[in-house]
Order: sequence, then C-alpha cells, then structure tokens
Amino acid sequence: MMRKPVIGVMGPGESATEIDIKNAYKLGKLIAKENWILLTGGRNVGVMDAANKGAKEAGGLTIGILPSNHTKNVSDAVDIAILTDVGNARNNINVLSSDLIVACGIGLGTVSEIALGLKNRKPVILLSQHQESQQFFKNLSPNLTFIAVDTEQIITLIKEILKKVK
Amino acid sequence: MMRKPVIGVMGPGESATEIDIKNAYKLGKLIAKENWILLTGGRNVGVMDAANKGAKEAGGLTIGILPSNHTKNVSDAVDIAILTDVGNARNNINVLSSDLIVACGIGLGTVSEIALGLKNRKPVILLSQHQESQQFFKNLSPNLTFIAVDTEQIITLIKEILKKVK
Amino acid sequence: MMRKPVIGVMGPGESATEIDIKNAYKLGKLIAKENWILLTGGRNVGVMDAANKGAKEAGGLTIGILPSNHTKNVSDAVDIAILTDVGNARNNINVLSSDLIVACGIGLGTVSEIALGLKNRKPVILLSQHQESQQFFKNLSPNLTFIAVDTEQIITLIKEILKKVK
Amino acid sequence: MMRKPVIGVMGPGESATEIDIKNAYKLGKLIAKENWILLTGGRNVGVMDAANKGAKEAGGLTIGILPSNHTKNVSDAVDIAILTDVGNARNNINVLSSDLIVACGIGLGTVSEIALGLKNRKPVILLSQHQESQQFFKNLSPNLTFIAVDTEQIITLIKEILKKVK
Repeated sequence: MMRKPVIGVMGPGESATEIDIKNAYKLGKLIAKENWILLTGGRNVGVMDAANKGAKEAGGLTIGILPSNHTKNVSDAVDIAILTDVGNARNNINVLSSDLIVACGIGLGTVSEIALGLKNRKPVILLSQHQESQQFFKNLSPNLTFIAVDTEQIITLIKEILKKVK
Repeated sequence: MMRKPVIGVMGPGESATEIDIKNAYKLGKLIAKENWILLTGGRNVGVMDAANKGAKEAGGLTIGILPSNHTKNVSDAVDIAILTDVGNARNNINVLSSDLIVACGIGLGTVSEIALGLKNRKPVILLSQHQESQQFFKNLSPNLTFIAVDTEQIITLIKEILKKVK
Repeated sequence: MMRKPVIGVMGPGESATEIDIKNAYKLGKLIAKENWILLTGGRNVGVMDAANKGAKEAGGLTIGILPSNHTKNVSDAVDIAILTDVGNARNNINVLSSDLIVACGIGLGTVSEIALGLKNRKPVILLSQHQESQQFFKNLSPNLTFIAVDTEQIITLIKEILKKVK
Repeated sequence: MMRKPVIGVMGPGESATEIDIKNAYKLGKLIAKENWILLTGGRNVGVMDAANKGAKEAGGLTIGILPSNHTKNVSDAVDIAILTDVGNARNNINVLSSDLIVACGIGLGTVSEIALGLKNRKPVILLSQHQESQQFFKNLSPNLTFIAVDTEQIITLIKEILKKVK
C-alpha cells in the first residue's frame, strides 16, 4: 500500500487577509482535485477554514490538527479532527505529518510552522505578497524554501517536489 | 456536515497475545463495516497493526497517531499517519481524538490510555480476559467503563453509546 | 557536576483524601531534608500542593510541571513553574523528568502517571491503602513497583533505589 | 511567596557562531548575578551549553528543557533537566516557562522560538548582527520585540521589562 500525499496548508487564523482566504480556498480545491489529502490546523477561521471548505467542495479528504481538547472551534469542513490539547505545540505535529507545506499568508503562528517545517527537512512553499518573509526564509534554508506567485503554480511545484521526495 | 464517528482501538504492541491480535483484527473489520473511522497508535506491531489490517481489508479509513517523527514503523494499513514526535504523550492525543475507546488486551501503555480516556470523560470498552484490570477501572470510573466479552458485543455497545453521546 | 536526584510525587488533585494530603505534606518535607529536588504536577490543589508546601517549609527546591499556559493555578510553594500547555500529556513529562516516582493516593491521572512511569522504566513507589491498585501494578511490572506503608519507609526505599540506579 | 524571574536564553545548537557562544556565556553569567533563573533548551551544544556554563560559574540556577526522553545530551551545567520527549515541540514549553526570552543568534529552531514567544505575548530581546531578522520580527510584533547590541544592554532591558510585567 502507498499512503496518499498529505499537503499541509498553514496560514493565519483570525488575522488572515481577504487575499489569504481566497488563496486558501482555491488551494484546498486544487489539492482535493489532485486526490491529495489536506491537512490544516483545523480551526473554523482564516486560512484553515477556507482551505478545508475548498477541499470539501471538491470532494477531498480533510484532516484538522487542533490545539484544543474539544471540538467547539473545529471547521465544519474538517473530516477528521485530531484533538491534540498541546496548544501551539501542535504546529510541530502539523508540519511533521505533512509531506509538504504551503504557507498561505504570514503571521506569528505561520512563521513558527515555516521554521519548524524547514527544521524538520520538509519542503515549504511560500505564497504571499510578503517579500521580506520570503527572503528571510530563503536565506535560512535555500534548498527547501520555494516561492510561488499563485495557487496554480503551487500545484505544479508540489507535483515536481513530490516526484523527488517519494 | 457531521463528522463520522472515530473509534480508537488501543492495546499492546510488541507484547500483544495471539488472542489480542485476533480480536483487534476482527474489531478493525467490524468497525470499517459500520463505516466508522479507525484510530490507533499506528505502529506496525500488535493490536495497532492488526486492527488497521482488519479495517483496510473491509475497505475502511484508518488513522495512525505515531509517537515518532518518521514513518519507518508505521503500519502498512494506516491511511493517514499523524507524526506527533511526542513519544508516549501521544496516548493522550489518541484518546482525545476518539469518540470512544476500545482497549483490546492489557499492558502499561494501554493502562495509561484507559486512564487518560476515562479522565477525559470518554467511554472505554474493555475487551480482555483480564478480570483484575476490568474491576480496577470499573471501580475508578463506574459510568464510563464498559466490559465486553467478544468483538460482536463491542459493536452493539458502541452503537448504544454513540446514540447517547451524539 | 552531578545533578541532584529529582523525586516526583504524584497524586490526586481535587479528589485527594485527607490522608493523601497529610502523607504528601510529610513526604515533601522529608524529600527536602534529604536535599533532593521535588517535582510535581504543580497545581494549587491536593497532593501536588501539599507536597510542595512540605518541601518549602523544610527549605527545599520545588519544580511544578503545569498542564496549562498560565500561572493562575500554580501552587504558591512551587519555585519553578514549567508551563507545558500540553494538558494531561504533561503526565509523561512528570515521570520522565523524575529519577523515581512516588504515587501518593489514587485517581485516573495518577494511574496514568504510574503506568507511564513504569513504561519508561522508572521505579514507582505506591503509598496508599488501596491494595487493589498495588496488586494491579505489581503484576504489570513486578521489578519496578514498590509498596510502602508510610512516608518514612519511602525515604529508606528511595535511598536504596537511588544507590542502584545512579 | 514570589517566584524568581525565569529568563529564557534561546539560540542555535550545532550551528552557533563563536560570537553567539561568547554572548551566551556572558549572558548566562550576568543573569545568574542578578539572581534570576536561567532556562534553556538544555543540550550540551551551542548557545544552550554556553549560557548554562556562564550561569553555573556565577553560582546561578539552571533549568534545561530537553527534547528527548534521556539525559545523554544534557549540558553538564544544567541543574534540573526536564525531559519532555516532545522533540521540537518543547520550543513552545521553553517560551511559555520564561518570563522573557533572549534570542542569541539565529537559526530555524530559534526563529520558531521567537515566533512562539511573541505569539504567547512574551517580550523577546534579539541579540544578533542579523539585521534582517530583527526587522522581520519587529514588523510582526512591534511592541514585544526588543533589539540589543550587547549583553550589558540586555540586562538593563530585562530590568525595565520585568518592572512593567510584574
């Protein structure tokens, strides 16, 4: 048996911008269409919620790795809710459980996930207008940091990366 | 949307008995037939491995919550591997992420999972010939500890319990 | 340099009995007098609180491993509060960070700590009138489970065990 | 009772520069002289090891929050080793358990700690020649990010910050 690729989509919750949310929704949709599994932080806000909604509308399977021990704030579009009860430490579980991470937007939680992802030798694709953060991570980890300008390019990039790592 | 019930099957790894493994395999199969999701500790030994194999053969969906940060010891029959890298602390994630826990056999890891499950107010069904442990947990948590004599009875019990908690 | 022995005292919080609390207080005192470090779950209730108070009154050093990300419920008698924010998963950190564990009383959290302690090959001393649990763990792990009838006997036992493991 | 301030010193392990190590050593010394408690990631390399050595030589108390479940790689200058066995997720415990964090140098682990520290509303002081990372975090969290040019300035800054938060 071969496990399906798991694509982690990380990004701001409450502080997500409209563009982040639009991108996350499209990304969720495209990931589901490729028959990949979507993994997010699972909450019912921001990038997490939007990516899950996109994936569900396209018939995908969605995993949410929650910081809490209850399901009150789980996105309705999460199929399987993993209740870690480890707070922000779940960010490390998010990146370890993903074959590849897409950071959609920027914020402190997302920065910790990008850093932990790269530290764990996971490829990370950055999608944001935030050039400063792109350069920052590119300098810290040149071989594993990828920059994308739109969601379509991300799918192409993921296919290329998965070919190499599998 | 309603998330499907997640049934956690916990039990010994390397020290599982032949009976534990036979029970876990049957249980995995029966859980999958009910269209419930199977959640285990995910490793390729003992009760975890057997339950996953049973579930996969019946076409079910299987989640493995691994203690490690790598996939070397993941059961081939796990569809989605959550790599927690939190060691035995993942036992708490196992029980929190399950709607209901079945303990199939006994061992120190399993004892910690039964105790953490009951502490988190999760129903726990004990399947083992081990009367002493049944009585021990029944005394500690009379309302949430259930005793079963075989796998078929477990499925009946799960249906009854799910009706109440949902 | 040699690190000082760290003695973990585990036991019920809100559900501790008067005897548990009395024992924990005496135990904390005796541990401090031996110049050992006391480690507990750190909250301001039950066995944790009493053991810390005993140790502080005898001039000892006390470490509390908290389940939360804040200091609201930390015992006043804790010198160093480790805020894990991993909920009950901190029970595994408690036992790993102790050279030896004393279980003072019984409850579901304590049962998980005894089981995780023994699984991690730590000596565990049980102090309780609860014969059933003593026998239960003695059967699961005969070489690492020790039974004590009072706090003085525990100190003698700890000295013997530390001599062997160091 | 009032708990003593806990100052977290974070920074690269294997990839620390000579300057990072020199700064960490001096910082450990100065922290101990103020009678504050030093908290680090606890391993016997880089910034962690150097800070602990500085603190011990000045007679301080040192806490190490280890990623592992064993003491093989603990710095000799750690007084109390907390064995979390949660891998890089211990970075969240490091920052939560510190009243204030000093990042001494830069690397992926350190970036995750700075981000998690700021996310948890902890003041973070950056000590490095790395202007890009200073600006990056200053933009993400202007009120909690502080820049220092040397270890003496850090101590002055810590005193000012502790006055406000206590």
